[in-house]
Amino acid sequence: MAGTLLVTGSVGIDTVETQQDKCENCLGGAATYFSLSAGLLSPVWLVAVVGEDFPQQFMQILESRQIDLSGLETRSGSKTFRWHGKYSQDMNSRETIAVQLNVLIEAGPQIPQHFGNSKYVFLANHDPAAQLEFLDQLAGPEVVVCDTMDLWIDTQRDNLLKVLGRADGLMINDDEARGLTGRDNLVTAGRSILELGVKFVVIKKGEHGSMLISKDDLFLLPAYPTEQVVDPTGAGDSFAGGLMGFLARQDSGLDPLKLRQGLVYATLVASFTVESFSVDGLLAADVKKLSARRDQFLAMIGGA
Amino acid sequence: MAGTLLVTGSVGIDTVETQQDKCENCLGGAATYFSLSAGLLSPVWLVAVVGEDFPQQFMQILESRQIDLSGLETRSGSKTFRWHGKYSQDMNSRETIAVQLNVLIEAGPQIPQHFGNSKYVFLANHDPAAQLEFLDQLAGPEVVVCDTMDLWIDTQRDNLLKVLGRADGLMINDDEARGLTGRDNLVTAGRSILELGVKFVVIKKGEHGSMLISKDDLFLLPAYPTEQVVDPTGAGDSFAGGLMGFLARQDSGLDPLKLRQGLVYATLVASFTVESFSVDGLLAADVKKLSARRDQFLAMIGGA
Repeated sequence: MAGTLLVTGSVGIDTVETQQDKCENCLGGAATYFSLSAGLLSPVWLVAVVGEDFPQQFMQILESRQIDLSGLETRSGSKTFRWHGKYSQDMNSRETIAVQLNVLIEAGPQIPQHFGNSKYVFLANHDPAAQLEFLDQLAGPEVVVCDTMDLWIDTQRDNLLKVLGRADGLMINDDEARGLTGRDNLVTAGRSILELGVKFVVIKKGEHGSMLISKDDLFLLPAYPTEQVVDPTGAGDSFAGGLMGFLARQDSGLDPLKLRQGLVYATLVASFTVESFSVDGLLAADVKKLSARRDQFLAMIGGA
Repeated sequence: MAGTLLVTGSVGIDTVETQQDKCENCLGGAATYFSLSAGLLSPVWLVAVVGEDFPQQFMQILESRQIDLSGLETRSGSKTFRWHGKYSQDMNSRETIAVQLNVLIEAGPQIPQHFGNSKYVFLANHDPAAQLEFLDQLAGPEVVVCDTMDLWIDTQRDNLLKVLGRADGLMINDDEARGLTGRDNLVTAGRSILELGVKFVVIKKGEHGSMLISKDDLFLLPAYPTEQVVDPTGAGDSFAGGLMGFLARQDSGLDPLKLRQGLVYATLVASFTVESFSVDGLLAADVKKLSARRDQFLAMIGGA
């Protein structure tokens, strides 16, 4: 049986523009992408708050995988988190056109009693103070992994360091790893992050792949060579979902080999995400397609 | 016995500045880096021209590996190619401060008679018209691989396409692959390059690794995670030397597995090159260190 996997973070409504196309008022949010990805591999407990404007059809999408929604509160009188962004031609940078935090700056979500004994916990990107409050509600999870962003590195460093002191792993992108440590070289930056208290760090390099660094391991993985990137939104959250879903499914804690294999699943679910707008690419994936793409990907990176 | 490996290209004198340090009038040139790299794995026949100002101690360096210098002409009354460049802080871009083509725009080198039956040939980056003239001098080599640069893509496209029509493989960096094909996506760009006549293309992404594309294969390889890059000059030429030296040593033509394994050696010799100024990192490498780094690298990319 899989270990219980809990995620907390944003569930929102996105408007995403690329140079070619646009997706208005689509399902978005870090915890959404995470849950739909991890849900391919393991049951997921989702803890988040949306407003009363959250569309019923989005709720149905979240119900479509093995995601327990008892921790998803629809708060009366509140509005759902909304983000509107626009990507550059090469998809490597994006501009935030509008953001309405809405319910995200109100009181955090409550964890249902039966979620209290979760073994694997993912704290999606959020204010580190809120991440700490959330951790306080949990009864000794086995593996806590968190995400963060440049905003918190720059403005909430002390609280972020407290989160890292209590977490087992950090998922972070390359620029954020440099910003957090002041080190240009990613291996050096990764090793500095280990000194902040986590047992492992995964540095995400987008189309250039990822790097896993722990005290005893250094693992390098290319990205899946997607030929047509439609919308990169949620790739990092899907990546985290793939890793954590696999770890929970295996339920072997932080076994180094499982971490490596989990990174492969992370890469693959993220590759489905970027193939369509919003969560459509993820919804088109299933265990069979994931497994077929895994065989194909392992053949592209092995054998030398 | 290894297949005979011939290289032609520049042997020059470089001045390289980084934000931290400087190397004045050092040994440089594409064919130099190639020869010293390939020479770790296979005998090399070097065909190039230098001027009478070429220092004797540089000649001794070139003699220090299994490099046959009978095709290295020291031309009386001519001056050696010189390049002076400066790198940005992150080492990802460089500015050419001065370039003196000198002997490179005079008549090309003559191929000694006993080099005529070389099986493996590498045409380092040079004017495609000169590459074609050089190919005309050769008696049916088995494997011809070439390099090029943005300048020739922009100004000598017709001749470059003729070279590609006669070559088996192309080594090219990511931006050049995009420039040559007009395709942003590297897999798509690589496939377009195959339509130009080569059997395989290696797209070099610097610190982000490389990609091998042929009709039947797609191989993704991260870069070796060098913690301190001192001078990236010659990394691409060393990379090509590692691949071709390995192919000549194996002497199995374009066997797909050998191409993959060759790309690993390419990655490793390039990693030695960038660790010091000029060819010092390469000279510090030997077969034993290469083999140890290979074991270490394979452990970083495998097992998933």
